[in-house]
Amino acid sequence: MNGAEALIRTLVDAGVDVCFTNPGTSEMHFVAAVDEVEGMRTILGLFEGVVTGAADGFARMADRPAATLLHLGPGMANGMANLHNARRARVPLVNIVGDHATYHKQYDAPLESDIDAAASTFSGWVRRPMQTEDLSQAAAEAVAAAIGPPRQISTLILPADVSWGDGATPASAVPPRAGATVADDVVERVAKVLVSGEPCVLLLGGAANREAALRQASRIASATGARMLTETFPTRLERGAGVPAIDRLQYLSEFAVAQLEGTRHLILVDANSPVAFFAYPGKASDLVPEGCEVHLLAGPADDSSGALAHLADRVAADVEPLLAPASRPDRPSGELSAEAVALALGAVLPEGAVVIDEAATSGIWAPGATAGGPKHDWLTLTGGAIGIGLPLAVGAAVAVPDRRVIALQADGSAMYTLQALWTMAREQLDVTTVLFNNHSYAILNMELQRVGANPGPKALDMLDLSRPDLDFTSLARGMGVEAVRATTAEELTDALERAITEPGPQLVEALL
Amino acid sequence: MNGAEALIRTLVDAGVDVCFTNPGTSEMHFVAAVDEVEGMRTILGLFEGVVTGAADGFARMADRPAATLLHLGPGMANGMANLHNARRARVPLVNIVGDHATYHKQYDAPLESDIDAAASTFSGWVRRPMQTEDLSQAAAEAVAAAIGPPRQISTLILPADVSWGDGATPASAVPPRAGATVADDVVERVAKVLVSGEPCVLLLGGAANREAALRQASRIASATGARMLTETFPTRLERGAGVPAIDRLQYLSEFAVAQLEGTRHLILVDANSPVAFFAYPGKASDLVPEGCEVHLLAGPADDSSGALAHLADRVAADVEPLLAPASRPDRPSGELSAEAVALALGAVLPEGAVVIDEAATSGIWAPGATAGGPKHDWLTLTGGAIGIGLPLAVGAAVAVPDRRVIALQADGSAMYTLQALWTMAREQLDVTTVLFNNHSYAILNMELQRVGANPGPKALDMLDLSRPDLDFTSLARGMGVEAVRATTAEELTDALERAITEPGPQLVEALL
Repeated sequence: MNGAEALIRTLVDAGVDVCFTNPGTSEMHFVAAVDEVEGMRTILGLFEGVVTGAADGFARMADRPAATLLHLGPGMANGMANLHNARRARVPLVNIVGDHATYHKQYDAPLESDIDAAASTFSGWVRRPMQTEDLSQAAAEAVAAAIGPPRQISTLILPADVSWGDGATPASAVPPRAGATVADDVVERVAKVLVSGEPCVLLLGGAANREAALRQASRIASATGARMLTETFPTRLERGAGVPAIDRLQYLSEFAVAQLEGTRHLILVDANSPVAFFAYPGKASDLVPEGCEVHLLAGPADDSSGALAHLADRVAADVEPLLAPASRPDRPSGELSAEAVALALGAVLPEGAVVIDEAATSGIWAPGATAGGPKHDWLTLTGGAIGIGLPLAVGAAVAVPDRRVIALQADGSAMYTLQALWTMAREQLDVTTVLFNNHSYAILNMELQRVGANPGPKALDMLDLSRPDLDFTSLARGMGVEAVRATTAEELTDALERAITEPGPQLVEALL
Repeated sequence: MNGAEALIRTLVDAGVDVCFTNPGTSEMHFVAAVDEVEGMRTILGLFEGVVTGAADGFARMADRPAATLLHLGPGMANGMANLHNARRARVPLVNIVGDHATYHKQYDAPLESDIDAAASTFSGWVRRPMQTEDLSQAAAEAVAAAIGPPRQISTLILPADVSWGDGATPASAVPPRAGATVADDVVERVAKVLVSGEPCVLLLGGAANREAALRQASRIASATGARMLTETFPTRLERGAGVPAIDRLQYLSEFAVAQLEGTRHLILVDANSPVAFFAYPGKASDLVPEGCEVHLLAGPADDSSGALAHLADRVAADVEPLLAPASRPDRPSGELSAEAVALALGAVLPEGAVVIDEAATSGIWAPGATAGGPKHDWLTLTGGAIGIGLPLAVGAAVAVPDRRVIALQADGSAMYTLQALWTMAREQLDVTTVLFNNHSYAILNMELQRVGANPGPKALDMLDLSRPDLDFTSLARGMGVEAVRATTAEELTDALERAITEPGPQLVEALL
């Protein structure tokens, strides 16, 4: 078999059986091999930012990597912003980046570029096999490196002749490793801090945002009086009625500082020490309060859930977790606002929904309105590179086809990777997109004030999306996705309720 | 004044007075400064690939650089594919990439990434001033480096605090340099080759594709019997009635090999030695025929037009250039095909048009049908990274507002940077887009055969755009651009004729 066939068989054998693709000429043998080897599902994206964001969404919900197939340096570059987000999400992901044949690179053909240098900026593992017989083993190691722990991005650069060369054999999957058990003395040290009576915050992130870990953290918090917080932008937060509730560290650093004020011990569980998202003149970058000690319970390579369980047994032996009670807001009425959209979502949220939140300023009411809704997952923009929402929704829907994906999407960021709607239509994914159309980069209008800048008309024009207005129902229909427009809270609620029960994708445009 | 204000004044004083922007929080002081300093026109793109492709199009038509304003590493990454194309086009371009404040980088905030490494893959000049007082001089040098010669991409990484810091003063523009005069002995050597009686090809590229240089090349060809060819994908080719006609080196290497067969001397004038675009099993990568000598008359840093004039005086003293005669095809009728679109374009092409060609397989008839049309420019996809057409059209229309820009755009590649339509609407640019909708990545269907792959249903599905069909009239209207659909040759010709006389942007969708 040729290299491409052995590569695909190796990936499938290692559990990577979904590949989001946007191929070109140098990937044509991979494309052809997909029919020769059983078991690989390929999903086309019309732009690489869709492909990479979808692989991220898949990994968040499937807890295993998908592959991407990208076309040389420029194809990878088009996917880099969402690969940045995936890196920050600490998800496993395997990029296959096609490149010129090994002997062709010397000619500096038009598509030649330094793939290795660019890939290294977001990948934890990069390799370029130079011979067909080395390809399968590299692929098996790419998957293992992606799975970790810690989870990370692997990028396998695939020269065309390595792909089309013959005599390849598939490689066996590398046996998976478990997360490292956190040492007893680390748990003991944190336990002492927790029972000291001094104000403690448990800052959870990554794998510690899943229900099992949250339950242990809640026991600890209940027993010791420590507060629980999660990262500002969680990769995947399990929440809703019956799951311990947890506040997110606020995006605006002024508020985050207020949240953390008085904290004497900050205990990190698969989370980074809190820092401001951006620097602002005269404001702090490091958000750890003065005099507060930072303790690491578990990092991304550790078994954070096990560490929390161990810690809970130590400090909260007979304590039960505090679970969010069931509650839903009433259906909203009257004028349509971002808050009304949130209430509508809370009123109709289905069991097991996956909520993708790239609503930016329009989304601030949504977590509150859904806190007591049926159990669901909440996925956010982890790396600040806008344009993740719709691609994430694609990947999540592929990973959990029996669940409804609801994408809360701001207008400005939607325009970065709107092509994801086409993939939703092609694959008939159960994704309901709620498009908040407020005709502006509202968050930048806010940030412009916060950095202390004094905007004039040209500046404001650069943050305005109203000349001309974007019509998202036309845009969605242009890509084969049914769309309706809502101008009142009632219309929005009805449209949303209908959309989440219909198979396939729909878009509801909320005109704010 | 603050750093941002001094930066903008420095850019404007150096002749950079258009900035294509997609800013974020770290660029807010730059955004605000645009109102404080006279003379900088800012043009918003809804995606960075639009921004960078527009800067390329501007440079091709204005012969001077525009600036871009990009948001940290991910914003730059989104613009990288078209920066790759701009690098291959050898246009001057100045990127301003906002970054975290110098003191904030240590905290590895979510948007932190290695901008320097990624920028180095496409930039000839990269600098990161660390103090406000160093910013203006760096900006002046960035512009000078971009202008060259050789022309190249400069990337100025702008930490937020360097931008907002006070006490800056603008820097003076660096005096421009002329292209190097090609030495007499180089000209003499090439002259001897040309008059040797052996088969010669003059391969023109870059600046040698402009009318003045083409006229000199044509004199040389007429006098010596040498053939003229231009690069496969010219940055900007002046052509039409009254300009010497020149064939392009074919994209398909089989045909390029046939074009070059028997050539004994290949004379490069601001062009690279010909290589295959991709490697194919069993086919040559280097397209120079065996036994053919390659001679460099002028490189990108040289005055290639001057060298051609010198050479023409030496070998073609009394010879006139051979100019393309005026001729137009008849208006086509009947079934709509890519060929019919080309004939329609030839029939109605206005004087001074700027044709942007990203029509891929659908565009192959267009050059022939317009060869005798009124004088016009032809701009192509220089680096193989699809998604350049509509952004190039934006930039070209900004650069030459008195001329009609006609974008010949394939469907698959249109979907990479379709957001450019919104900028056309906002700026009311005189751009007529002809959208070839053939419902597939037709070029990849061809390439799949050429690489010798044997496609099955999954493979073919990855190259198909018909499930669902893209409706480009809906998509265009969703971004505020008037659009019509043509299903016959007559409809297409009428729609195109009407569109090119109306102010502002229009899209004509050719259903093939």
